Amino acid sequence: MGLSKVAIGRLLHISRLLDQQEEPVISSSVLEKITGYTSDSIRKDISLLEGDFSSNAGYKKEALSLAIKEKLGLLRERICCIVGLGRLGSAFIDYKGLEGSFFKIGAGFDSNVNRLEILQADFPLYPTFKMKEVIPRLNIEYAVLCVPPGEAQKAADKLADCGIKGIVNYAPVALHLPKGVQVENLYVSDALNSLAARIEILHD
Amino acid sequence: MGLSKVAIGRLLHISRLLDQQEEPVISSSVLEKITGYTSDSIRKDISLLEGDFSSNAGYKKEALSLAIKEKLGLLRERICCIVGLGRLGSAFIDYKGLEGSFFKIGAGFDSNVNRLEILQADFPLYPTFKMKEVIPRLNIEYAVLCVPPGEAQKAADKLADCGIKGIVNYAPVALHLPKGVQVENLYVSDALNSLAARIEILHD
Repeated sequence: MGLSKVAIGRLLHISRLLDQQEEPVISSSVLEKITGYTSDSIRKDISLLEGDFSSNAGYKKEALSLAIKEKLGLLRERICCIVGLGRLGSAFIDYKGLEGSFFKIGAGFDSNVNRLEILQADFPLYPTFKMKEVIPRLNIEYAVLCVPPGEAQKAADKLADCGIKGIVNYAPVALHLPKGVQVENLYVSDALNSLAARIEILHD
Repeated sequence: MGLSKVAIGRLLHISRLLDQQEEPVISSSVLEKITGYTSDSIRKDISLLEGDFSSNAGYKKEALSLAIKEKLGLLRERICCIVGLGRLGSAFIDYKGLEGSFFKIGAGFDSNVNRLEILQADFPLYPTFKMKEVIPRLNIEYAVLCVPPGEAQKAADKLADCGIKGIVNYAPVALHLPKGVQVENLYVSDALNSLAARIEILHD
């Protein structure tokens, strides 16, 4: 489809910022300003999309965001699981951040059976050894990895083996996975570095 | 210093990927491949750095990563606090992901005094009403916001009022903050969308 990983990242970023705007129509100069991308780069990315999202005053916000999600194949439901139900993982039990999204939590896994007995969730909880049976049966494609750093690589290998296509990794380690399994790391250190650099450089 | 927010993001991304490489020297074509950026864009970003990081075979990995961190002002210690010590926030009590970084957790805050009595951490824990006194006293510049979504904006306003410069936001809401306070959102939905788009598009 002719989109690089970098272009995908730009389109996702544009769509996220559009969703946060309150005005229904957004001019190309405002879009340039809030994204930080050049108008050339924005025009080029947007030229790949289909749909009616232009008006005299600029881009129709909702229609453009929808065209991006359509292009990126994001308009269908996907099931994910939470792996590791300690402090971090169990925080997803009453997490509201996926409401209204196309992602649904289908299951939670933990190797500690006592923990599974204590926790109560809207989605079913299973011991880790049941992954191989549960993941294909519930059509789970994505995993949110919340295990301690020392267990992360082993758990990721197991998830890859169960057919998981993508892993959101909270453990502060670099995972090595077979081609075909994508990883997105959510390291707090990266977020802090990003803040620090912006504060250091942009305030001049 | 002539760096845009987008260029800062690219440099941080390059530095992160360099830190994960095992080879001591990395050719510009490999750097192009792992980052996804064009060689022109990489050369332009790197031309802004100072230091001796080039060799015949390519870039010296460690020296280049260091030059980036130097340029972005990341080589000094910074203190952050954890705000909200529920499931997610308390996960930072035994978090190892900041070891070896320039960030240190200086304090934790929660409005629930019972919770503060139960938790044990290597850093001091305070009731929320002490923020205004504790944050300047401990030179805390950054906050990791782990409160429930309904409390996030109020907590962020309070942090801005206490002089916090940057907030890592885990709550799935868009924060509105005064100019001068930077926010980095760690939404699991963004990470899942990014994975889904890459899997959808790149596997063709």
